[in-house]
Amino acid sequence: MRLAVIPGDGIGPEVIAEALKVLGEVVPAAEITRYDLGAARWHATGELLPESVLGELRQHDAILLGAVGDPSVPSGILERGLLLRLRFELDHHVNLRPARLYPGVRSPLADPPEIDMVVVREGTEGPYAGNGGLLRKDTPHEIATEVSLNTSFGVERVVRDAFARASNRQRRHLTLVHKTNVLTHAGSLWSRVVEEVSLQHPDVTVAYQHVDAATIHMVTDPGRYDVIVTDNLFGDILTDLAAAVTGGIGLAASGNLDVTRRNPSMFEPVHGSAPDIAGQGIADPTAAVLSVALLLDHLGEHEASRRIEASVAFDLATRDHQSPGATYAIGDRLAALVSSNVRTG
Amino acid sequence: MRLAVIPGDGIGPEVIAEALKVLGEVVPAAEITRYDLGAARWHATGELLPESVLGELRQHDAILLGAVGDPSVPSGILERGLLLRLRFELDHHVNLRPARLYPGVRSPLADPPEIDMVVVREGTEGPYAGNGGLLRKDTPHEIATEVSLNTSFGVERVVRDAFARASNRQRRHLTLVHKTNVLTHAGSLWSRVVEEVSLQHPDVTVAYQHVDAATIHMVTDPGRYDVIVTDNLFGDILTDLAAAVTGGIGLAASGNLDVTRRNPSMFEPVHGSAPDIAGQGIADPTAAVLSVALLLDHLGEHEASRRIEASVAFDLATRDHQSPGATYAIGDRLAALVSSNVRTG
Ligand SMILES: CC(C)[C@H](C(=O)O)[C@@H](O)C(=O)O
Ligand SMILES: CC(C)[C@H](C(=O)O)[C@@H](O)C(=O)O
Repeated sequence: MRLAVIPGDGIGPEVIAEALKVLGEVVPAAEITRYDLGAARWHATGELLPESVLGELRQHDAILLGAVGDPSVPSGILERGLLLRLRFELDHHVNLRPARLYPGVRSPLADPPEIDMVVVREGTEGPYAGNGGLLRKDTPHEIATEVSLNTSFGVERVVRDAFARASNRQRRHLTLVHKTNVLTHAGSLWSRVVEEVSLQHPDVTVAYQHVDAATIHMVTDPGRYDVIVTDNLFGDILTDLAAAVTGGIGLAASGNLDVTRRNPSMFEPVHGSAPDIAGQGIADPTAAVLSVALLLDHLGEHEASRRIEASVAFDLATRDHQSPGATYAIGDRLAALVSSNVRTG
Repeated sequence: MRLAVIPGDGIGPEVIAEALKVLGEVVPAAEITRYDLGAARWHATGELLPESVLGELRQHDAILLGAVGDPSVPSGILERGLLLRLRFELDHHVNLRPARLYPGVRSPLADPPEIDMVVVREGTEGPYAGNGGLLRKDTPHEIATEVSLNTSFGVERVVRDAFARASNRQRRHLTLVHKTNVLTHAGSLWSRVVEEVSLQHPDVTVAYQHVDAATIHMVTDPGRYDVIVTDNLFGDILTDLAAAVTGGIGLAASGNLDVTRRNPSMFEPVHGSAPDIAGQGIADPTAAVLSVALLLDHLGEHEASRRIEASVAFDLATRDHQSPGATYAIGDRLAALVSSNVRTG
């Protein structure tokens, strides 16, 4: 197993160290190559993602990314030039974001039901296409446009993936989230594709919700969701909200998948670089560890993946959430659980 | 005071009846003209918003709208052809949505702080501009686009309005919500305008949040918000979420304002037509009544507006939320409170 690791900025390197500690327990033979990309490299060299590095990344089975972003870099530079560039260059069309309320974890909701959903967010088009511009900048007649691009090809592959995932889950329920009553063109395409693909999945029940209504139900009735399929921007918004109601982005893992396996998929915690707590050794590495579980599952190492998730679930059920321990201590605990789990499981 | 009233579909007419009952207590001389627009008219005549009706609507001081939408009408028809058409034709550039957690109202949050914010949502551009299309429909090469249009003119006027509102509030805090790290063109325009206008409002503190982060804080720390200014689509999403955490869209009022007063502004409860409970006399008219309060405030009837809001606050603090009463009973209660308030206040 050849893994590329991009520790990145802020707490990225801190949580990645623990994630690799845990990975070492289940796949000791994994070959790890580190790539320095992010704010520091950009400041030092002006480089974001050199072609040569991109070429090397492509030679790996998967990529593990810590976080990218720093207040010293103008907004958009690292996001568009590095993070989104990776997602687009490597055709990460399925942005997979599970949201589960683990026993022991406190939800901000008063009366949280069982929550166990996975959001399948489109990852390579929509309003993220980078299509748009400014006309007459800095004049009273300035116009800024952002174009959401949606293709039959792009929508169909992510919808197919979402149905396949729903088929493999217990509840077999899929919710399309969009805003078809206003974004009528894109909404029409998404609705038609979901309808067509659903014919091949009579086992999956299908629902539709407008994105605004979905945010309401995410706080009043999140238990209703099983698989959600949605576009890139709605998925960005909904997954942060889903993470919030299941205990926070500190626990949220994600996978950026090329499900054709032509390119390596990339796994990252959702929390970002959190510059306010960087360097203090207090970041929670749980989301990075869960990202390793997603990575292993994607590479077919289902047993190892399950073992890591079970260890995280056990730790969350038993940890003192007021003082969960330092970054390294949580990593040690999870590594120990995983390895004992290896022995006994 | 000449008011146009569009009861509309579903529970629209039911809640409007109560809203007018309450209005009658404070402005008995208001001249009311009803307009039948919505699903029934469309089914009967194919008409959505005839030019003649639009012309008549323009002759009024304000418009009170119940709700528009019915499952029998394909998605998008009434929304684009009637509701959004009214907002665009009447240049309703400030979509005003207060979200307050009234004492006595149960939030879905476990530990809700004091919440008292107002979202100033842009109402006439962004992804709602209706600019986009389909190419090669129903082929494997189909493309659907949606273009977000943002103009200096359009952004500046709503940002100015938001700053003016923030200036008049106790906390004088304004948060711009956008997604500047991805929607870099529109994000750049919005950020620059906020920065420029802020120079004229040194009394207002300014914060920025990405829309995904804002949904998180809306459930973990909603007390931080005072005035939020944001684009049409982000505002749509955020205001439903803000309504959810403050007790539900059943209580959320809104104003679609042309702040230049060239066109009549339009006031509507956010809940929509709720076809599932229509005709049963059980819809809560509170949001419609609060919309009347916004209407009166906009027309300069600040005292009457305050009286209605105080009556709603009193009723919410004292009502049995398990069985708040039938639609008419809540209306009767609020009307009685408002009139006693008139006498004593
Ligand atoms: C950092 C940003 C570009 C990114 C996104 O919008 O996709 C982040 O919010 C995420 O969800 O991974
Ligand atoms: C019905 C729909 C077109 C509308 C919108 O998206 O603005 C509604 O959701 C609202 O918020 O008033």
